[in-house]
Amino acid sequence: MTDVTFPPATPAGADVRIVDGGIGAPLGFRAAGVACGIKRAQPAPAAAPLDLALITADEPVSAAAVFTINRAVAAPVVVSREHLARSGGRAQAIAINSGCANACTGDAGMAVARDMAQATAATVGCDVDHVLIASTGVIGVALDPAKIRAGVLAAAGALRADGGADAMRAIMTTDPFPKATAVEVRHEAGTFRVGGMAKGSGMIEPRMATMIGVLTTDAVVEPAVLAGALRRVVKSTFNAITVDGECSTNDCAFLLASGRSGVVIRRDDDPALLEGLTAVAGHLAREIVRGGEGATKLVTVRVTGAESDADAWLAARTIANSPLVKTAIHGGDPNWGRLIAAAGRSGAAFVLDRASVWVGPVAVFASGVPHDERADEAAVVLQDRAVTVTVDLGTGGPHDATMWTCDFSAEYVRINAAYRS
Amino acid sequence: MTDVTFPPATPAGADVRIVDGGIGAPLGFRAAGVACGIKRAQPAPAAAPLDLALITADEPVSAAAVFTINRAVAAPVVVSREHLARSGGRAQAIAINSGCANACTGDAGMAVARDMAQATAATVGCDVDHVLIASTGVIGVALDPAKIRAGVLAAAGALRADGGADAMRAIMTTDPFPKATAVEVRHEAGTFRVGGMAKGSGMIEPRMATMIGVLTTDAVVEPAVLAGALRRVVKSTFNAITVDGECSTNDCAFLLASGRSGVVIRRDDDPALLEGLTAVAGHLAREIVRGGEGATKLVTVRVTGAESDADAWLAARTIANSPLVKTAIHGGDPNWGRLIAAAGRSGAAFVLDRASVWVGPVAVFASGVPHDERADEAAVVLQDRAVTVTVDLGTGGPHDATMWTCDFSAEYVRINAAYRS
Repeated sequence: MTDVTFPPATPAGADVRIVDGGIGAPLGFRAAGVACGIKRAQPAPAAAPLDLALITADEPVSAAAVFTINRAVAAPVVVSREHLARSGGRAQAIAINSGCANACTGDAGMAVARDMAQATAATVGCDVDHVLIASTGVIGVALDPAKIRAGVLAAAGALRADGGADAMRAIMTTDPFPKATAVEVRHEAGTFRVGGMAKGSGMIEPRMATMIGVLTTDAVVEPAVLAGALRRVVKSTFNAITVDGECSTNDCAFLLASGRSGVVIRRDDDPALLEGLTAVAGHLAREIVRGGEGATKLVTVRVTGAESDADAWLAARTIANSPLVKTAIHGGDPNWGRLIAAAGRSGAAFVLDRASVWVGPVAVFASGVPHDERADEAAVVLQDRAVTVTVDLGTGGPHDATMWTCDFSAEYVRINAAYRS
Repeated sequence: MTDVTFPPATPAGADVRIVDGGIGAPLGFRAAGVACGIKRAQPAPAAAPLDLALITADEPVSAAAVFTINRAVAAPVVVSREHLARSGGRAQAIAINSGCANACTGDAGMAVARDMAQATAATVGCDVDHVLIASTGVIGVALDPAKIRAGVLAAAGALRADGGADAMRAIMTTDPFPKATAVEVRHEAGTFRVGGMAKGSGMIEPRMATMIGVLTTDAVVEPAVLAGALRRVVKSTFNAITVDGECSTNDCAFLLASGRSGVVIRRDDDPALLEGLTAVAGHLAREIVRGGEGATKLVTVRVTGAESDADAWLAARTIANSPLVKTAIHGGDPNWGRLIAAAGRSGAAFVLDRASVWVGPVAVFASGVPHDERADEAAVVLQDRAVTVTVDLGTGGPHDATMWTCDFSAEYVRINAAYRS
């Protein structure tokens, strides 16, 4: 096969346009980010770092979430899962702290998580089952409930329609930059908006990164439809990224739908809803990778010619997590041998004599034949900050997959070899 | 569970003692290593690097092999597999070159591999189906058949019972040191010997590292029994190591049995045979890890309390390949949170509240409770060049697994980010 197409950096169809405002772009949401003393203070004259975010709707609204598949699951994940199940997919508030993951903290950690939800419910004035919570930061350290309570109270007083930027800063840990975006979507029934924010940036893994994501929309969507749409979108966005193959104890992505646009979405495969959510979540996912620990390049890994959808994803994940592929790209080396070796060991059906590898648009290995005479051309492509590598598995099958990863640098090792990062 | 036992560095029972001689320690084998110009010459006055090894028995003998599971399989692997199948598990010669993997080289590469086997058969004076071949080095580069032919001829003239050291040097690539050992095994029927040599050292993965291993024994073993014994031993030795989770296109381990000791082994679970083979292959496997690219520590990963054998290996592999675990150990950080997170995401059954983590003998996380007051003690243990980390999955199950890995250093990135390493 020869006509490989490359995905645009931000997939956006004719009916989707980017707008300002992040999670506050859709109608019906307010947000705030405050400092409550969980994150270690920086030396003066730096202001105390924001470490507690609150996002609220004006009333209980449709809510959906996707959580980590790690079996060492943090207390806030347990609590949020319970609340969503009991509320039948409705929520009014999301409280998130950074600086402490409240993971591996036993019964005491569960008590603090419940206290955090209770304090949020009391402050916002909603049922506790309508509160979702999340924590991110160091594992195995106790979370101080007094600080959380004070933070929630302060955040409730600071809630604003344009408070998303503060909320975003309050959920960051090692993220080098904030990640937020929003789009307006034209639907046959009118226009609605989707907004979002997310944090990374170590322990980023295929099936839910160490990430917390919050998506908002003002479309009218029933909880079951919202949950179905989120699951569809996560597969090709938050679950299609990797920094280091690690999956954390705290990963979660929340989606709230206020209904304030009046645009009614009835199906979880509604193209406009999926396109809007994918534009926002996809952008945030790629931003998480671009801001990955030690990353210098955003790498799009495309796999084509797979016998099955599962094979396409298996090969893409294996390539995207391969230390040898990631170090080669870091070094600017169009080393197709490492891409072929990673695809070959992935377990996906693979036919070497018909397999091909492209670096950007340059075919460095075509139908089983090396083209090292194009290595210089491919090396130039690898100088870019955003590069695409494509591997065709040679089976003639119709399935493909796209993942995003970053290169692997000595800086990643430096960051993570530091004592108790 | 509290009574974790730690495997000795070199498992050796009362009936096994280490002897000199490597692959030449068992009777009935000769070896040589010569320079034939495939590896790039070093600046004068360095001698030309050895790059072709020949190992022969005095006649066709029982032979077994284990090959890479990578589907992008190199030409010499295809040829050796065919020969073993056609000969019914008999071989007289093994020819191995370094400096060029003869992988991803298409039909031309297959022709060179067949030529390499044919030249070896003609020179040694045996049937071509009694020749096994292997190649290691750069992928995607053509192997020069004239150099191979000249090398085989020169090596045949240099064969000696004590030629194993030269053969070992001739199969090295980025290995920082040679790896060879031998043992004498006392069996109820008499004593026999097992010898071996191996090379690493990048692309080292659970299911066959980028490694080439040659094992010899002078026990009398029929081919089917030999193959069964090799499969059993590989699971806990060559297949229980990882440097970087990569599996190469060229991995293979060969085992020849000359029968010259007269000690007859009739079953593939004969304890003396398994103990001898495990002592040699286990030592070589750990030496490969110790010599892994950028490695500064040999790390033993023990998983206990698993519900099934498969779960134990799954958790051990995931931990042993975790970049966050490997960088923490590199940095001397007894970061039990990363070990728990890796075990939790592995897919193995895992009960957080009853899980435990030891660094050496220090329980830093016991039955779901952190013991950070022992962190300093554990950090001292991590200063050693050889460290053991143990994770109990908390299921109460009886299964365990042990893998060997190395720490993850900036030097690994430096080596592998160099253009076309």
